Amino acid sequence: MAKLDPYVPGEQPKLANLTKLNTNENPYGPSPRVLEAIAAESGDSLRLYPDPNGALLKQAVADYYAVAPDQVFLGNGSDEVLAHVFQALLKHDKPVLFPDTTYSFYPVYCSLYQVDYQRIPLGSDYRIQVADYLHSNGGIIFPNPNAPTGILLSLAEIEWLLKKNQQSVLVVDEAYIDFGGETAVCLVDRYPNLLVTQTLSKSRSLAGLRIGFAIGNAVLIEALERVKNSFNSYPLSRFAIAGGAAAFADDDYFRQVCRQVVCSRDGLTAGLKSLGFDVLPSSANFVLATCPSQDAAGLSARLREKGIIVRHFRQPRIQQFLRITVGTTEQNRLLLNVLAELLKQ
Amino acid sequence: MAKLDPYVPGEQPKLANLTKLNTNENPYGPSPRVLEAIAAESGDSLRLYPDPNGALLKQAVADYYAVAPDQVFLGNGSDEVLAHVFQALLKHDKPVLFPDTTYSFYPVYCSLYQVDYQRIPLGSDYRIQVADYLHSNGGIIFPNPNAPTGILLSLAEIEWLLKKNQQSVLVVDEAYIDFGGETAVCLVDRYPNLLVTQTLSKSRSLAGLRIGFAIGNAVLIEALERVKNSFNSYPLSRFAIAGGAAAFADDDYFRQVCRQVVCSRDGLTAGLKSLGFDVLPSSANFVLATCPSQDAAGLSARLREKGIIVRHFRQPRIQQFLRITVGTTEQNRLLLNVLAELLKQ
Repeated sequence: MAKLDPYVPGEQPKLANLTKLNTNENPYGPSPRVLEAIAAESGDSLRLYPDPNGALLKQAVADYYAVAPDQVFLGNGSDEVLAHVFQALLKHDKPVLFPDTTYSFYPVYCSLYQVDYQRIPLGSDYRIQVADYLHSNGGIIFPNPNAPTGILLSLAEIEWLLKKNQQSVLVVDEAYIDFGGETAVCLVDRYPNLLVTQTLSKSRSLAGLRIGFAIGNAVLIEALERVKNSFNSYPLSRFAIAGGAAAFADDDYFRQVCRQVVCSRDGLTAGLKSLGFDVLPSSANFVLATCPSQDAAGLSARLREKGIIVRHFRQPRIQQFLRITVGTTEQNRLLLNVLAELLKQ
Repeated sequence: MAKLDPYVPGEQPKLANLTKLNTNENPYGPSPRVLEAIAAESGDSLRLYPDPNGALLKQAVADYYAVAPDQVFLGNGSDEVLAHVFQALLKHDKPVLFPDTTYSFYPVYCSLYQVDYQRIPLGSDYRIQVADYLHSNGGIIFPNPNAPTGILLSLAEIEWLLKKNQQSVLVVDEAYIDFGGETAVCLVDRYPNLLVTQTLSKSRSLAGLRIGFAIGNAVLIEALERVKNSFNSYPLSRFAIAGGAAAFADDDYFRQVCRQVVCSRDGLTAGLKSLGFDVLPSSANFVLATCPSQDAAGLSARLREKGIIVRHFRQPRIQQFLRITVGTTEQNRLLLNVLAELLKQ
């Protein structure tokens, strides 16, 4: 185990007055109905185990996406769901394929479970090119929109890949799909090798509660359940089950929050461009942007001195980019003002 | 993965008016201070990720047990802690040793991570005999008190085994220690191969919140952190971190609840004996009992018809026993009355 090189999450600073645009949290809190459901669950009943199957939340997800409850798998955040996916579905003799620039937890899971993998380069425009994923593999996984680029693949491209790649599981990690993409859930009944994962941490403002899920063919879900039930019978707390179900019940709130984030993203993108940044076209709640006149690591450090945290990845191809979470209108304005000031110096 | 034979937890029935004595939950709810801490955490801050290190709760555990925070590992329930223990610390060429009658999740973890194991028979009195654990091994694990027997090993016996077995990790799973045993945490500084695991699900009435932890030498903890950070950066929700810390802050409440459960256990044991049951001497919040005139599976089914659920294990040596969780005084009286009635028929 000494060989394991763990995933390093974005900083969770203890200082309260920092402007935190580094871990893609939603700038708006959860639905009031979630808070009501949590309050109702908080009492003597905490002495009791949660439903190990999380049936209430499974049903809420199933109803929302018009699938059956046995097509839904729940986890303690989508990172846990993905861990089980690598162990249960992606460990084969052939390598699993994922982009060279993508969620940096994927190679960590591979290392944990000794899964062979191969990184497929993004195109020169930082786009996933699905035609590059056709060779022999033990599975394919990518986020859609991709992270940290924010760039979306169309459903047509995903379906094209599913048609060409029927021998292994394709996992579409839709952590950011609600900010501008169309979910691939509508394809699961036609493609039994498609698994879609999502999280309530981003678009549903519940990073602190830890809920993720996967939707796919019941055979894939059963394999995940087998691993989950060999790992932890009760991964979701009573709060996660009740609060998660309530989040799906308040669709108006959810849509309003997503609309506001998308609107703020457009404003942030325009502002960055007017300061001379190149900004990749984002369908997520963050943007990946580079300023040709500035070293990204240095700019990140200078922003931090001014009380603003963004994320900088020391990795090939994107070392001159900053990943900036879309904040509130006020946070975005502050960021743009501070950047304008820094660029003048 | 189709080979995996998952752990089967005790039933979590949906019917409200059952007397639930089957999963060793505490009959009393959590401390009011836990509920206050949860209420304080419920709001807009749920949009933010929890502290991935759970420093607040680590410090609370460290203070409570007079160890350093880097000797504490946190998990999403002690089942998750144990899963990481099997993967990080117990996977070797030689088999891990555990009792033939013990927590039935251990062989499931072994199957999940391909860990070789050997079951060591309990003595004819159902006691763990530490002298039987001296042969070559890749680790040793047992609950103390053992489950489902409830029988306690003394600290002297554990220390004897630690002295004789210095080449592999000894894990003492103290899920039930607060109901009458003495924790082995006082030995961790002298024995770097000792790891103690505990849970807040039983004595601290928080099964619904999902918190477990381990205490040991910082080297063992670091190995666990490495696996945890390769699996899920944020296993504990904001509620688990805040609520768990509050549980350790209210020691008076905790001691009072434990005293009451111990008192009820003594009453339940005496009542069962007066009905003709043999009851193993329990230091936990459950008793393992057999009635020589009755088939245990049949008796369990008849209790269920009367609205009382207890746990029956279809496994060698204990198939004629029932594991009965200590309930409130009223629940225990109801159980004894119903049993008296059933035994007359």
